[in-house]
Amino acid sequence: MRTIGLEDIEDIALGSSLLGSGGGGDPYMGKLEAIAAIKEHGPVTVLDVDEVGDEWTVAPICGVGAPSVSLEKGTNGIEYEKVRAMMERMLGAKLDAFLLSEAGGLNSMVPISAAARAGLPLIDADGMGRAFPGIQQDTFTLNGVSTDPFVIADEKGNCTVLYTVDNDWTETIGRAVTSACGGQVITLASPMSGAKMKTSVVVGTLSYAQRLGRVIRTAASAHGESPESFFLRESGAYRFFKGKISDVLRETRDGFNFGRVRLDGIGDDKGSQAVVEFQNENVYAEVDGAIVATVPDLICLVDSETFVPVTTENLKYGKRVLLVGLPCDAAWRTPAGLELAGPRWFGVDVEYRPLEECYAAFAQARRA
Amino acid sequence: MRTIGLEDIEDIALGSSLLGSGGGGDPYMGKLEAIAAIKEHGPVTVLDVDEVGDEWTVAPICGVGAPSVSLEKGTNGIEYEKVRAMMERMLGAKLDAFLLSEAGGLNSMVPISAAARAGLPLIDADGMGRAFPGIQQDTFTLNGVSTDPFVIADEKGNCTVLYTVDNDWTETIGRAVTSACGGQVITLASPMSGAKMKTSVVVGTLSYAQRLGRVIRTAASAHGESPESFFLRESGAYRFFKGKISDVLRETRDGFNFGRVRLDGIGDDKGSQAVVEFQNENVYAEVDGAIVATVPDLICLVDSETFVPVTTENLKYGKRVLLVGLPCDAAWRTPAGLELAGPRWFGVDVEYRPLEECYAAFAQARRA
Repeated sequence: MRTIGLEDIEDIALGSSLLGSGGGGDPYMGKLEAIAAIKEHGPVTVLDVDEVGDEWTVAPICGVGAPSVSLEKGTNGIEYEKVRAMMERMLGAKLDAFLLSEAGGLNSMVPISAAARAGLPLIDADGMGRAFPGIQQDTFTLNGVSTDPFVIADEKGNCTVLYTVDNDWTETIGRAVTSACGGQVITLASPMSGAKMKTSVVVGTLSYAQRLGRVIRTAASAHGESPESFFLRESGAYRFFKGKISDVLRETRDGFNFGRVRLDGIGDDKGSQAVVEFQNENVYAEVDGAIVATVPDLICLVDSETFVPVTTENLKYGKRVLLVGLPCDAAWRTPAGLELAGPRWFGVDVEYRPLEECYAAFAQARRA
Repeated sequence: MRTIGLEDIEDIALGSSLLGSGGGGDPYMGKLEAIAAIKEHGPVTVLDVDEVGDEWTVAPICGVGAPSVSLEKGTNGIEYEKVRAMMERMLGAKLDAFLLSEAGGLNSMVPISAAARAGLPLIDADGMGRAFPGIQQDTFTLNGVSTDPFVIADEKGNCTVLYTVDNDWTETIGRAVTSACGGQVITLASPMSGAKMKTSVVVGTLSYAQRLGRVIRTAASAHGESPESFFLRESGAYRFFKGKISDVLRETRDGFNFGRVRLDGIGDDKGSQAVVEFQNENVYAEVDGAIVATVPDLICLVDSETFVPVTTENLKYGKRVLLVGLPCDAAWRTPAGLELAGPRWFGVDVEYRPLEECYAAFAQARRA
């Protein structure tokens, strides 16, 4: 058992943004809220998965919507109490702890705010080990956890509860509600026992994010090596490309941000081009017309000097970025994981190859 | 107290279709279902408003969606049990009776099916005295009844509950859920006490519909006068135009059917043209370019020979129809009523004039 205080917020937000793979929301508004919540209610208790009682009732909390909307439409605060009160009413029982739905800038901060305000502990785990656009794209679904009741609250005070025939329908109806509510909401769903949670999560997401955040924050002052090589070595990220953003196409549609970004190579990559397609999160990356990495592995764009992750809604012409990849959790490399979040789910008709293999082939081709 | 048996279904469906003003859904599928429900569970007890206990809990039930969808996508049957179970769970109390949300072909039948299946009485009243497209356009809203909890069930088994900050938000979010569920759902909402119901409804809708239905059914065998004059006299409808449908524009958008129908005059109206615009229900009617009737009064197209109402989803090229009007309930002619369902709510920038005045002016102009 440990706590999250004000001094931990920055690293968790930074590292979670990297894990967000372009999605999970810009952390700025979420940080302000988490800081305010901790100042008012005190530090948040963080529990390791094995510190959670098997008989507890726990549930993941997050923001859902188009990340571009979250930049302009913050939460009101009432959403946290609304979703918890409704969840406990539907369960006829109190919640014992929150966990993260996904790793992402905004979505690492939302559970901290919720836990601080409710005086509940936060479990060091999430349901993706990254961020995905679909509500049903999580390890809870992979492990047979129903989203019922899926509770949605908006900043105006509207509260919606969904009981669905499967988690795909939760995505369909929940997305429609999210759009109707203005494109960004808070959700609390998929309540489960502590025992079920232990076999259905990606373990240690908060502490992993915090370590990654520290790497990003300290890279510039690395001793004896370049900041970039420090960042890559310490984060374990695979470097595919360095370039300047020369074009961004972006569309908010059906409650998602769809788009693509083009990079013109700089430094060693001068003369080459890279493209990254996204649906909230980055879906695949191409270098000179060849796909070099795909979901469910993590595809991330980070500032080429500070290594601060650039979420898809913050992509801007002229920005210099590194295109890097991180391997996804093993759950996503199973047949069921690939069916739920592999390239074909996103309409990209290629066979999935693990990032490590992709990188080896890419590096070899570059040397040739 | 009386009952609705198999022999009453046809007249109620016919008359309700007239009151539906083009909307409220085609009654065909609803009739089949109501007949099946009465055959299985027996006749439905109908209560006059003053037979309802003040302390009872009652709620209106109906189908919501684009009427064109209801032609192809029937109910499954599970919706009725789903919405009632969820409503009673949220209230922590049993329902004592259903009432009609609106008068309309399908939406007069849905409450009969629901009452038969649940073994609950049905109150001879509704919340519009006609049909309107918006969920919030009812006399319950006019009388301060919240839709909370607004319970939605689809034929797949999905169930959604809305608690909203006002009934306009129920329309916005409820419509989005309806579209996501495939465009047609069953809803149970706006629970209220018997006492509140008594001051918040249009009284006697079912029996009024049944009388109108009998008029339509027997018009063809009228003695000593033409079927048309019998129909007009007995129904109290104002006759504006007789024509042949020469064009229908129809669009399903945002969960509604929008469109317009053009009539080329026949008989005495030869050489003239009429146009009716609709949003699920008929919104206004023009004859030779001048508006002759608007919401909230009832604008109806009926078959020129059989007087069977033609709902907007059944408008077809070549069909011969009478354009008639019926005065709306007095609640809709108040300032609050006109704000909620007058021409300007529908984007038609004209001042409302009561149908009787409109007709007098129209008849005078025709004579001149």
